[in-house]
Amino acid sequence: MTDEAEHSLLILARQADGSVEELPAGRIDEIDQLIDRPGTLVWVSSVAPEEAEIEAFGREFRLHPLALEDLRKRQQRPKIDTYDQQHMIVAHEAVADAPDGLSEIHIFVGAGWLLSVTWTPTPMCDAVRRGFAGHQNNGTDTTGELLYALLDAAVDSYFPVLDGISERLDALEDRVLEGEADREGLAEILRLKRRLLELRRVLAPMRDVANALLRRDLEIVDASTVPYYQDLYDHLVRVLDQVDIYRDLLAAVLDARLTVASNSLNAIMKRLTAFTVVLMVPTLIAGIYGMNFDYMPELRWPFGYPLALAVMLVAVLISVTFFRRKGWF
Amino acid sequence: MTDEAEHSLLILARQADGSVEELPAGRIDEIDQLIDRPGTLVWVSSVAPEEAEIEAFGREFRLHPLALEDLRKRQQRPKIDTYDQQHMIVAHEAVADAPDGLSEIHIFVGAGWLLSVTWTPTPMCDAVRRGFAGHQNNGTDTTGELLYALLDAAVDSYFPVLDGISERLDALEDRVLEGEADREGLAEILRLKRRLLELRRVLAPMRDVANALLRRDLEIVDASTVPYYQDLYDHLVRVLDQVDIYRDLLAAVLDARLTVASNSLNAIMKRLTAFTVVLMVPTLIAGIYGMNFDYMPELRWPFGYPLALAVMLVAVLISVTFFRRKGWF
Amino acid sequence: MTDEAEHSLLILARQADGSVEELPAGRIDEIDQLIDRPGTLVWVSSVAPEEAEIEAFGREFRLHPLALEDLRKRQQRPKIDTYDQQHMIVAHEAVADAPDGLSEIHIFVGAGWLLSVTWTPTPMCDAVRRGFAGHQNNGTDTTGELLYALLDAAVDSYFPVLDGISERLDALEDRVLEGEADREGLAEILRLKRRLLELRRVLAPMRDVANALLRRDLEIVDASTVPYYQDLYDHLVRVLDQVDIYRDLLAAVLDARLTVASNSLNAIMKRLTAFTVVLMVPTLIAGIYGMNFDYMPELRWPFGYPLALAVMLVAVLISVTFFRRKGWF
Amino acid sequence: MTDEAEHSLLILARQADGSVEELPAGRIDEIDQLIDRPGTLVWVSSVAPEEAEIEAFGREFRLHPLALEDLRKRQQRPKIDTYDQQHMIVAHEAVADAPDGLSEIHIFVGAGWLLSVTWTPTPMCDAVRRGFAGHQNNGTDTTGELLYALLDAAVDSYFPVLDGISERLDALEDRVLEGEADREGLAEILRLKRRLLELRRVLAPMRDVANALLRRDLEIVDASTVPYYQDLYDHLVRVLDQVDIYRDLLAAVLDARLTVASNSLNAIMKRLTAFTVVLMVPTLIAGIYGMNFDYMPELRWPFGYPLALAVMLVAVLISVTFFRRKGWF
Amino acid sequence: MTDEAEHSLLILARQADGSVEELPAGRIDEIDQLIDRPGTLVWVSSVAPEEAEIEAFGREFRLHPLALEDLRKRQQRPKIDTYDQQHMIVAHEAVADAPDGLSEIHIFVGAGWLLSVTWTPTPMCDAVRRGFAGHQNNGTDTTGELLYALLDAAVDSYFPVLDGISERLDALEDRVLEGEADREGLAEILRLKRRLLELRRVLAPMRDVANALLRRDLEIVDASTVPYYQDLYDHLVRVLDQVDIYRDLLAAVLDARLTVASNSLNAIMKRLTAFTVVLMVPTLIAGIYGMNFDYMPELRWPFGYPLALAVMLVAVLISVTFFRRKGWF
Repeated sequence: MTDEAEHSLLILARQADGSVEELPAGRIDEIDQLIDRPGTLVWVSSVAPEEAEIEAFGREFRLHPLALEDLRKRQQRPKIDTYDQQHMIVAHEAVADAPDGLSEIHIFVGAGWLLSVTWTPTPMCDAVRRGFAGHQNNGTDTTGELLYALLDAAVDSYFPVLDGISERLDALEDRVLEGEADREGLAEILRLKRRLLELRRVLAPMRDVANALLRRDLEIVDASTVPYYQDLYDHLVRVLDQVDIYRDLLAAVLDARLTVASNSLNAIMKRLTAFTVVLMVPTLIAGIYGMNFDYMPELRWPFGYPLALAVMLVAVLISVTFFRRKGWF
Repeated sequence: MTDEAEHSLLILARQADGSVEELPAGRIDEIDQLIDRPGTLVWVSSVAPEEAEIEAFGREFRLHPLALEDLRKRQQRPKIDTYDQQHMIVAHEAVADAPDGLSEIHIFVGAGWLLSVTWTPTPMCDAVRRGFAGHQNNGTDTTGELLYALLDAAVDSYFPVLDGISERLDALEDRVLEGEADREGLAEILRLKRRLLELRRVLAPMRDVANALLRRDLEIVDASTVPYYQDLYDHLVRVLDQVDIYRDLLAAVLDARLTVASNSLNAIMKRLTAFTVVLMVPTLIAGIYGMNFDYMPELRWPFGYPLALAVMLVAVLISVTFFRRKGWF
Repeated sequence: MTDEAEHSLLILARQADGSVEELPAGRIDEIDQLIDRPGTLVWVSSVAPEEAEIEAFGREFRLHPLALEDLRKRQQRPKIDTYDQQHMIVAHEAVADAPDGLSEIHIFVGAGWLLSVTWTPTPMCDAVRRGFAGHQNNGTDTTGELLYALLDAAVDSYFPVLDGISERLDALEDRVLEGEADREGLAEILRLKRRLLELRRVLAPMRDVANALLRRDLEIVDASTVPYYQDLYDHLVRVLDQVDIYRDLLAAVLDARLTVASNSLNAIMKRLTAFTVVLMVPTLIAGIYGMNFDYMPELRWPFGYPLALAVMLVAVLISVTFFRRKGWF
Repeated sequence: MTDEAEHSLLILARQADGSVEELPAGRIDEIDQLIDRPGTLVWVSSVAPEEAEIEAFGREFRLHPLALEDLRKRQQRPKIDTYDQQHMIVAHEAVADAPDGLSEIHIFVGAGWLLSVTWTPTPMCDAVRRGFAGHQNNGTDTTGELLYALLDAAVDSYFPVLDGISERLDALEDRVLEGEADREGLAEILRLKRRLLELRRVLAPMRDVANALLRRDLEIVDASTVPYYQDLYDHLVRVLDQVDIYRDLLAAVLDARLTVASNSLNAIMKRLTAFTVVLMVPTLIAGIYGMNFDYMPELRWPFGYPLALAVMLVAVLISVTFFRRKGWF
Repeated sequence: MTDEAEHSLLILARQADGSVEELPAGRIDEIDQLIDRPGTLVWVSSVAPEEAEIEAFGREFRLHPLALEDLRKRQQRPKIDTYDQQHMIVAHEAVADAPDGLSEIHIFVGAGWLLSVTWTPTPMCDAVRRGFAGHQNNGTDTTGELLYALLDAAVDSYFPVLDGISERLDALEDRVLEGEADREGLAEILRLKRRLLELRRVLAPMRDVANALLRRDLEIVDASTVPYYQDLYDHLVRVLDQVDIYRDLLAAVLDARLTVASNSLNAIMKRLTAFTVVLMVPTLIAGIYGMNFDYMPELRWPFGYPLALAVMLVAVLISVTFFRRKGWF
């Protein structure tokens, strides 16, 4: 699905006083002790984990075998799975680097800890991490807030994508209205179609995830965090609305394209008809005076020839004018 | 989204006895004292607020940070967000001036106060304001009634828009049936399509907002106000119904356009066929008498030439009549 | 929406013993006394009421201001609004006279009284009125039964409309299959499309109204009346089903029309090709014998000319046969 | 709707010991006594009842006036109506004889009795009747079981219909892919479309009826009968699924037809172009040597004529080869 | 539906200590004793059972007559039917061998036993069987786990099928964009359409089955098994999402195909027009100099002929250049 990013691991623990401690990746086995320390929020952020690391996560966080299997296989659609005291959330971020423009994120949340795993270096995690390492009360004080920060960043990544699609749609519409109905335009329509279907495929379940969080299915979302998840849900609905509008517009552009092609065919056939008539009439006249009858008085006239030419010219002019008036030329 | 309107601020407070006091914009910091005065309904109406003002709103009305963020960013879809004791409602009004024909309105409602923010001068707010400044019992005596007055005005703004669309659709249909299948008509179809999609995008969530208000999710809607919100909801459903009907009709017009183009292509091809036959038959006759055989008795006839011309004429007349009868000419 | 009918007002009161008293329109102000009389069922039926009358209704029946506003504005979609002890029901009847074929009916129901307002003289009200003035136990003994009688008559008015549409659809289908693809047919398709959309627009909410009544949302529908409202609901579902089927069939006819046009284009082009070949081959032969070479032995043959003509004829016959076999002629 | 079948009436009563007694049609007025006999299951099966009979049914079974009205009018969609202690069920059976292929069945069920009315002799009733007259414990021992037997037979009648449609669809698809795009095929598509719409119209509400029965809305369906109604429901869902698939396939065939027509038009136009070029080039050459210039050396050559013919032939061969390579011939 | 596989029967019983005992097929009548043995999990796996075997199953497992009827008839859609203490689950596995690519599986589950019946040898059952015969705690320790293992294997069988469809879609899209609009492509589109409809038909009810299991409608799914059924459900939703995306893409390809055909028709007609003009102009010139007027000075010029040829050539060059510039050649 995505180009494999370089492997990296970050283990952060924030005390109640806001101080942040970073554990080297080698001491991965001490995570369970960190978690047990009261008043500490542990965030482990892993990029492209190797098998050994995945197994360590399973041990340290006591992850469910199915969750580990998902981690290994990836290719999940956005969802929340609840195992006993912990939750697994799958989301997708829009990233420019990935082949299909999407990067999968697995987030595990438990009491006092959060584990996030990605396979491409996403700008989202980087930004949140910088915030996390900062002072207290910066909106990442609880697992609920940290989870929100990560998901919010993921959702924000879709807005520039939508802007790009909007511009491509406008360009397509302009081209179609100008009558350019080339193959490249069609390929672009099919590409946009696929892109919008892909976006819908991940955004619709992400909205459901936000809705489930909002309705406090998880104990980690408390009353003061609810407005934030409401906001997340609103954003996702807005993005989905936009995707649906683009889909409808794309369908309209495809229809318009067919109509333009049909119009231009009419124009071509009108021109063919006009050309045929304009050229066949003088040809007929020439044919007439090419007949070999003994008694064709015009042939003996001194001005027969220029007269015939003149008649042809007049015939051409009349038919050209006729078709021009009808708008066929 | 919309052209920035000139900045303006209006602070109104109505006492229990109906008298309305206006606070100058400079005394924005006294709003919280106004609110605390019992029996007073405070309405602050702001157009295109600057950052300092937004911050003052946040302080005076104790708005939630997310609500303030929405105020700064705008581009929200219609919604109700509830924060503790207050609600934020986003609606859209149809205005002629805005580029996309829509003007966003943010309304904050709390116990005894209402804050409305717009970014274009909307006729709606002006009308309600004139009513508010009037006597008592004019339908804006409580926050619930004032909110209804604002939303009702917003919904009413869509009816002339729908009438305009209906007229444009009728004009399109007439043009299509008259066989005019030009590019301008197609561009108009795409414009109407976009317009209807835009309208649907804001009207569907506005209906949901009205429904939520109707079901008394907010304490500000009491039993006596319910019929008004029922009415609001009915109006929105009616507008949406109409938008959907227009969408279906537009699709039918696009289909009809394709059919008309295809019919007219048939007519052109019939004419081309008729022209070809009508002109080729005499050409063939002329070709025959242009052959150079030694023994072609007709060539020696004194009336060979006029006879040949007559045969050609008859051939033309026969084929013209033939195609005319078939309706190909 | 509809041509204004002549204004008329009928005030009827039926005692417990079945006797019906009619109050002259001038004594409209005594309606409240009639209502208060125990055991009396009051039915006021008004056509195209004037402002003074509407105000009198408001006074006598204590109607809600919003209900009065609806009465003045009309253009409502079918709905039930409940105000305290009374209900307002909007329905539509199919009438031949109205421009859009629909006539709006506003019915207000309270304890012991019913007020019905229409703006065209609808056959429905007339029929029910005749029944009402009759003997006891005729199915209009309570407000619930009277309301049913009115709504049932309204629903029945749609069946002949559907039959008419069915016939028009059959005629359209026949014309399309016979290959008649003229503009009039297309205009008829668009007219039918509009008609079906209009019908759907009023019938779907009427079904919802029937459903709401059926579920006894109103106290006026008691256990013994429920089967009647069930029947009403069944009829509306049947009508809507039929409208949807007609919509699908209409879409199929439009598609078929495009296919027929495309088939007939193919036939035309085949004929053009056949004509072109059939006429060009002898023209080429004539051209060959019109060449001026010194040594063209055929030109000297005594039977050269008839032979050439024979060759042309054979060429024409062969090509005609060829195209006839392919079915191109 | 359907050809009127010959009138017939069958009154059967089965005792607790399995013995079946048949009452002559003339003793219709004794039905109420039969019903009152304890432990007896009465089944009255009527085909095309006359008015007198309908009235007798109303008396004997104490049917609701609305149910009697339905019996007289018919044209009902499948439904369950409940009146006090009895239920009226409308279903449709697929029969070959009826013009629209459907036969309406009205079933009335009460404690210890069942009345079934049809208007065409349906194979279904006949089959169940043979079973009923047999021994005990044959699956028709209670009204619930007898009702199931009748409905199950009705549902089974749709399977051969679906098979027939499937075959017609396959035949259509083959014809379309072979490029046969004649009018008969189009008429067949429209016929199939109508057929599928008709089937959907009766099957969807029949599924709802089965679902209502399954959820034990009727006291006659007890725990041991539930699996049978579950089975009935499953069958109806399966039939509906199939109808929907056929609808989608039919739409695909119609689309394919348009594409085939468009492809074949391309082929025709390519051939026309090829013919035009192939014939016009030698015509031009002949025209050149038909010019009357004094000094045209080729005309004097002894082999000028055969050479000219050879050049024409070569031109024809080259252009034929050219178009053949492009696949235009 | 599927080729009949060879008949086979496997009776396995696993003790609490993990040891697995296999009963020969001949001792089928001892199954009820196996089931009664406490702590034993009995799995009977049958391929293409004969009537005698089906009857034995009915006896030994006390299956409901309707379940037996389903076993005999097959052609069921995925479902769960519950009879008293046991459940019947129908699922479909994707297999390469079957004509329609699907293999039906009937699973019966009771307390301590599971009976699975297939009619083609499915890789799924084989794989699970190998696992079952292994050690303890291998994920098939309870009926709930064994059922999950079987269904999970069935769901996994769809992923390669989807990959295959994706490749075929890509190939189709490429062909269409390259302008290849042959009949084979169309047949492929119709085949894919059928395939996707077939897949949807079995996958949608399978998702409902998984959902029903997940919500613990069956007592055999306990808290610890829920995550597995959640996983099953997620997979099915993913597969269905993908099927829907492919359906949308297929529709887009069909549309694109029509557009490509229409584009290529335009190109052909442009070429025809160009050819006609390019060839008719010199033909006209030749016709002019083939006229027989006495006084045509050009005819007497020594260089008249080469000049005429030159003029023709120039005319051809000009018109070729003209059409080339317009892109019509």
